[in-house]
Amino acid sequence: MTHSFTRRKFLHQVGAAGGSAAVYQMALALGMMPSKAFGAPQLVAPLNGRKRSVVLLGGGLSSLMSAYELERAGYECTILEASHRIGGRNFTVRSGDFIDEMGNPQYCQFDDQPNLYFNAGAARIPAHHHYLVHYCRTLGVQLETFTNVNYNAWIQNDAVAGGKPIRYRQFVSDARGFIAELSAKGISADAFDSNLSAEDVERVLQFLRNYGDLDPNLLYKGSNRGGYVQPGIKAPTAGMLEHGTLHERLDFSELLKSDFWQYRMHFGESEDQAAAMMQPVGGMDNIVKGFVRNIKSPMVTHAQVKDIRIGEAGVTVVYQHDGQNKELKADYCLNSIPKHLLVGIDNNFPAEYIQALSAIGRGKMFKIGIQMRERFWERDNIYGGISWTNQNIEQLWYPSHGIHSEKGIMLGAYTWEHENAEFFARLDPQQRFEAALSQGEKIHPDYRKYAENFVSITWQRMNHHMGCTAQWTPETRELYFDYLQQPLAGRHYMMGDQISYHPGWQEGAFSSAHNALSELQKRVSAELASA
Amino acid sequence: MTHSFTRRKFLHQVGAAGGSAAVYQMALALGMMPSKAFGAPQLVAPLNGRKRSVVLLGGGLSSLMSAYELERAGYECTILEASHRIGGRNFTVRSGDFIDEMGNPQYCQFDDQPNLYFNAGAARIPAHHHYLVHYCRTLGVQLETFTNVNYNAWIQNDAVAGGKPIRYRQFVSDARGFIAELSAKGISADAFDSNLSAEDVERVLQFLRNYGDLDPNLLYKGSNRGGYVQPGIKAPTAGMLEHGTLHERLDFSELLKSDFWQYRMHFGESEDQAAAMMQPVGGMDNIVKGFVRNIKSPMVTHAQVKDIRIGEAGVTVVYQHDGQNKELKADYCLNSIPKHLLVGIDNNFPAEYIQALSAIGRGKMFKIGIQMRERFWERDNIYGGISWTNQNIEQLWYPSHGIHSEKGIMLGAYTWEHENAEFFARLDPQQRFEAALSQGEKIHPDYRKYAENFVSITWQRMNHHMGCTAQWTPETRELYFDYLQQPLAGRHYMMGDQISYHPGWQEGAFSSAHNALSELQKRVSAELASA
Repeated sequence: MTHSFTRRKFLHQVGAAGGSAAVYQMALALGMMPSKAFGAPQLVAPLNGRKRSVVLLGGGLSSLMSAYELERAGYECTILEASHRIGGRNFTVRSGDFIDEMGNPQYCQFDDQPNLYFNAGAARIPAHHHYLVHYCRTLGVQLETFTNVNYNAWIQNDAVAGGKPIRYRQFVSDARGFIAELSAKGISADAFDSNLSAEDVERVLQFLRNYGDLDPNLLYKGSNRGGYVQPGIKAPTAGMLEHGTLHERLDFSELLKSDFWQYRMHFGESEDQAAAMMQPVGGMDNIVKGFVRNIKSPMVTHAQVKDIRIGEAGVTVVYQHDGQNKELKADYCLNSIPKHLLVGIDNNFPAEYIQALSAIGRGKMFKIGIQMRERFWERDNIYGGISWTNQNIEQLWYPSHGIHSEKGIMLGAYTWEHENAEFFARLDPQQRFEAALSQGEKIHPDYRKYAENFVSITWQRMNHHMGCTAQWTPETRELYFDYLQQPLAGRHYMMGDQISYHPGWQEGAFSSAHNALSELQKRVSAELASA
Repeated sequence: MTHSFTRRKFLHQVGAAGGSAAVYQMALALGMMPSKAFGAPQLVAPLNGRKRSVVLLGGGLSSLMSAYELERAGYECTILEASHRIGGRNFTVRSGDFIDEMGNPQYCQFDDQPNLYFNAGAARIPAHHHYLVHYCRTLGVQLETFTNVNYNAWIQNDAVAGGKPIRYRQFVSDARGFIAELSAKGISADAFDSNLSAEDVERVLQFLRNYGDLDPNLLYKGSNRGGYVQPGIKAPTAGMLEHGTLHERLDFSELLKSDFWQYRMHFGESEDQAAAMMQPVGGMDNIVKGFVRNIKSPMVTHAQVKDIRIGEAGVTVVYQHDGQNKELKADYCLNSIPKHLLVGIDNNFPAEYIQALSAIGRGKMFKIGIQMRERFWERDNIYGGISWTNQNIEQLWYPSHGIHSEKGIMLGAYTWEHENAEFFARLDPQQRFEAALSQGEKIHPDYRKYAENFVSITWQRMNHHMGCTAQWTPETRELYFDYLQQPLAGRHYMMGDQISYHPGWQEGAFSSAHNALSELQKRVSAELASA
């Protein structure tokens, strides 16, 4: 008790000096963190002295999780990774880091400060992504709240309001108002086949009044939800000492000209994007570092796989390393090489396997991180979240961390549309920077003057990736998904977020590893039972 | 340049050891934070050697801001505070702290750890609260993201679904779906007087499809926005390796039985509650500490004001301190004593001033902070945010900070309804704890087993407060608000969040100080000009 009290006192002092992150790291070191795992089934049974070897192709999260779990059960593991780094599309870019993009190699010029990083791949964590949260917990990766939707951010569309940016809250408030008004008219006119009682109808009308902030006549006349005419340095007490002035409400047909409502307005309602979202303190790759710290098996980078042979007794992989071809034999192979690269590697897979791998589309994605000398967006009352535009850059992200510090890294473009990813892929880095700046200026007029340097990444041109999120269609799902989840000859197991219902999410990678490990366990159990 | 590089390197090392909070504090100490104020007008002109004295009654934020600004302009200030502490309703409760509630004095039993605190008063910061954010920046109070709305939290209502809690996302998704369906029927029937073109009607229908996630026939059949049937330890890959199973959609008339939609569902849309919200790292009272560190003027606690006399030449205040009546004369008085207590203090105010002060209602508010031995809500995928219930406790809050650490303080009740504040006021602390636990169990069945200790606070019974958020009506606003914003005889200036359009918000207090300082400056300028 005294001992514990002393440790807590100590932590308290650490906290006073270094804040909660320092306390967290220290508490981990002192063993004061909860040891009970909140959430993962044991997938791999201990070998109890028997020997089994596994080669893991690709150094992304599915391989890291697999190696971590297999190693603990006594398996001998080797990870082969073609690129210079472990982590795959979990990639946090900091000062000096190398971007190995085909034709556009870049070194990151950011200042060397802990807050100045850019998650070039995975960048947010939904709380229900079970394995992801579990490993953050288990590996001691500290998480913090991530702002995904910000009502103070901007939406901008060239076709709407003369291209002038509109606050997210204003658009959403007006959209809800118009919808509620429409609904109220619909129900008042009793124009539809309603199963609602008279009491329910009254409740619906009351609901709509609240939902859309309608006036007593069920009309939408604007709402303070949309915010008051911009308070700021010159009017810091707007709305505080007197009634504020509401924004003029948007015209509904003007609002409908924006593509924003087509999905972006609803993005924060979706299963994987709804609050609360999280991020690791200090960069997404702390997850990778957490695994790397806890895996003893060899991880060979610059190891490019040339040939994969599945045999009766195991799998033989030939890879190029240090200018030489090397051969590695293992009992099993867990393979997360991107399917569009895998089909170009010599192998003895069945033809239908190759056909299945070839049928999945290859995603394209562009991001640019820009170092800003001043966190000018905070003057605009923006702390984290996303502004949306119909230009090629699509999104601007503001960092959720480092509030009120000196500089910040903004995400100056994040493309969901392939044509926008291709637009940027055709440009050289300096041209990308220029395009990002001139498009960003439509949202933040003085954007350019804060930009100090940048780093850009086109995932479909990154060496050893050559693609981003796997593109499945209902047809390819139907035809190939279950098939690719099955092992080949009990020896070869496909993995990676590509083999999940959530490609592009880290949890997809972990889930695919869950599947591969479960299948592998079945196989090993059968082997051992019959031995 | 070399110098700067060295300092950054140093900071980087600090960051590696202690996280971003440590870096922030260190950067402040090194003078590397931006010095340029982002946002406050200069309210008080320097006296340039002339003498002026101000007595500030009440030690809340309006007095702290005023003393901070006046001192810098050369005014001689004294703060008199009746209670044992500075800060007013900015009150962070930690291990050992005293709750001075009439009839129910309590000492906080929380473990002594930095993450285990409870913001018993102000607890969140909207980004557009300009002075609040300005002073956090200026005083070096580090902010972090605060989760206000969490789609994974619960809503619970005894009259709905047999009292079973429902995920926020499920309720909201279904509510949006039903509304969109109603609207679509309304517009399809052309039952209202529409100014929309045929093209617009098509856009509206498309909008509604996206808004409510309707099916191609414009019917709402459920949505993955509502989440899949609970993934968890037993099914960590639900929805990841196969299509997930959607929740069955709620019946609209069932949904309408909940009072949730009456305002709570929309609370995260409102001007002051919409994302992104923030909180100071380590507790709200870091703002108070920031002021206290930077104010040199005397702050006298346990100083209870007995008499206020406004004269031609200044203001005379009699206060009790150390068992004696003491007299303090000052040129001006800035007064933030709660209006319902002020009217009971001897004074020579005009009768109509007393009448105005008396007309404003006295708010009531109850909160209870409970120390939980395990952060069980994180197993439920809840990280921050609020669950809502129609029971007396009204709200459960989960901490946004300390993710994955050992213990946490939950807010076990936060009442907005006066009748609920009164329900808890009638109970002694142990009874309150029991009531909070048994009500919380309807949301988290095993809630009780994690609860270690608690601290409760009833603001309407707190000594020297005896009330919470001032209650204005449209009528009292019309009659008295402008009047109370005006100085009395150029000598006495009312302040506090009570004299703002945002009572209950820290920004209301700062805005009222803005008003008082502006009025005072006018007065002093006139005096000096005529001197």
